[in-house]
Amino acid sequence: MKTKAIFYHAGCPVCVAAEQNIANALDPARYDVEIVHFGNDRSRLEEAESAGVRSVPALVMDGAVFHINFGAGIEALK
Amino acid sequence: MKTKAIFYHAGCPVCVAAEQNIANALDPARYDVEIVHFGNDRSRLEEAESAGVRSVPALVMDGAVFHINFGAGIEALK
Repeated sequence: MKTKAIFYHAGCPVCVAAEQNIANALDPARYDVEIVHFGNDRSRLEEAESAGVRSVPALVMDGAVFHINFGAGIEALK
Repeated sequence: MKTKAIFYHAGCPVCVAAEQNIANALDPARYDVEIVHFGNDRSRLEEAESAGVRSVPALVMDGAVFHINFGAGIEALK
């Protein structure tokens, strides 16, 4: 069974670089990667915060949050 | 041809989590992942700094540096 990985971002340049390099680099045989763009889907903000996301871009895998560089604080996206 | 990805870390718990979840999750068909542990190989510090690594864990891919969470500043490892 594949592991779910969710990449949260907000379209910022730092986010796009991380998406292209890291989110797209995950092994598709082992990971189902979902890309969530808060600019298009603000309804996912609450879920992300509950998972521990404090800034974007961030990758949530197996319940662990990985903040990758810093594009924007999640508070700025509300 | 595979892309080279170098994961720099220092054995800290934050580093180990990032290694297990992100470095090991990269697609082996597309990426050659090298793991560099500064505790075992301090001679790589200079190369990492030149690439732009400021803290560990960090992943360098295609010349871009991605700092993943924060384990330790690179200055603390010298």
